[in-house]
Amino acid sequence: MGILDSLGVTFVEKSRSLTIQEWTVTEPMTQIHGILHGGLSAAIAEQGASMGATLALPASRQAVGLSMTIQHLRPVPLGSRCRCYARPAQAGGKIQVWQVENRLVEEDLLFSMATVTIYCKQVSDEKYSI
Amino acid sequence: MGILDSLGVTFVEKSRSLTIQEWTVTEPMTQIHGILHGGLSAAIAEQGASMGATLALPASRQAVGLSMTIQHLRPVPLGSRCRCYARPAQAGGKIQVWQVENRLVEEDLLFSMATVTIYCKQVSDEKYSI
Amino acid sequence: MGILDSLGVTFVEKSRSLTIQEWTVTEPMTQIHGILHGGLSAAIAEQGASMGATLALPASRQAVGLSMTIQHLRPVPLGSRCRCYARPAQAGGKIQVWQVENRLVEEDLLFSMATVTIYCKQVSDEKYSI
Amino acid sequence: MGILDSLGVTFVEKSRSLTIQEWTVTEPMTQIHGILHGGLSAAIAEQGASMGATLALPASRQAVGLSMTIQHLRPVPLGSRCRCYARPAQAGGKIQVWQVENRLVEEDLLFSMATVTIYCKQVSDEKYSI
Repeated sequence: MGILDSLGVTFVEKSRSLTIQEWTVTEPMTQIHGILHGGLSAAIAEQGASMGATLALPASRQAVGLSMTIQHLRPVPLGSRCRCYARPAQAGGKIQVWQVENRLVEEDLLFSMATVTIYCKQVSDEKYSI
Repeated sequence: MGILDSLGVTFVEKSRSLTIQEWTVTEPMTQIHGILHGGLSAAIAEQGASMGATLALPASRQAVGLSMTIQHLRPVPLGSRCRCYARPAQAGGKIQVWQVENRLVEEDLLFSMATVTIYCKQVSDEKYSI
Repeated sequence: MGILDSLGVTFVEKSRSLTIQEWTVTEPMTQIHGILHGGLSAAIAEQGASMGATLALPASRQAVGLSMTIQHLRPVPLGSRCRCYARPAQAGGKIQVWQVENRLVEEDLLFSMATVTIYCKQVSDEKYSI
Repeated sequence: MGILDSLGVTFVEKSRSLTIQEWTVTEPMTQIHGILHGGLSAAIAEQGASMGATLALPASRQAVGLSMTIQHLRPVPLGSRCRCYARPAQAGGKIQVWQVENRLVEEDLLFSMATVTIYCKQVSDEKYSI
């Protein structure tokens, strides 16, 4: 079981065109100022995109994260209910690009947005090479 | 105690010109292919930069993460000993930019690199506004 | 007159909530493979966001670009008619974040997307400090 | 002849491990505040990385830019002599990652830094796919 699962981050939707994760900000998810750790927003965004990219691939290919960029727009207080939406901007080729929005559920406010670029490598490739 | 501490990610150096974190890749830190979760590389990079930026600030200012970009260069197997180095490219003003390198300790190989942009807000600012 | 003007890149809409630029890909705008230079897509995206951010500011503040990230999604052949749309994802504070889409006019296809982060500095600040 | 050539941006070094471009900031290269247009810094960075990546490839492969991220660190006044250094952080596989530094020649000061990710596509691939 991965660390994000342990923290209660749960997929409520999983398809090749949309993934949604949900979670509540708990104590271990905060940084020193008592708000959601920006690194966790990033980790969750990367996970949502990777899951969607994987679902979009045939069994002969595997999703490998190349890069992620995230912009933090506002602080997320302890106790907030959050949702992470990931959607493909580019799919179908060897490179997928996913756009991710992290939103506060109650106010439906965007608090961070990310772009994740994923390489779809052949599983048969002997050597892992991004 | 934050989630990265719980995972055994530890600062071995903390200054305004360099922070170093160390950790060993354990099971909960891996994604479905059994390698280090790229989102965790991102979270650790963001934490290293934020810590350094905070140390570079007077008490009247607080570090607020604006954005992070990370490039994943190679997979990191379970059991690897890793180090995250963060250094300022730009400091001293209201915006700091930190460069981060995640490296395998044994082979001294770069496995991901990140850039983190941080806003140094006045603590007295009533409203949090990035 | 700036270089992008000389190349025929023209604003057809300019407001604090949307800027639109239009251009046709001419020979000097192509790279060695005969398609639109990715660096020009980036330059145009940055210009669209900066213009919008400037319009959103009072006279006492000036827009200073902090960072840009662009993803290139498909090649743009010589002769293509293009449009660059820039919209704010975050405005009103000291940091603005703009999202930019570059699209082929005829097919209405997205060919690159960018995110631009802008610092709104006090004009009275003696020393330029990003 | 491409637009950057017309502006006097010249390669003074071209190899698979380093490219260097040089230029002087002239009027058409400035934005409304009379300093180097940040979009041009980006265009030059992307060009330096692409040139190096191309030199690192066999004739059967072609460099395709996937993404670029640039951080602007300080303003560059009209008349400044500038240099753009691009070096590979990752090469040899299907994806190359290049790090770029734009520096003022006289003061040897970093004014912007970029990371460029490049896909090395098979020339024989019928369909261009990013």
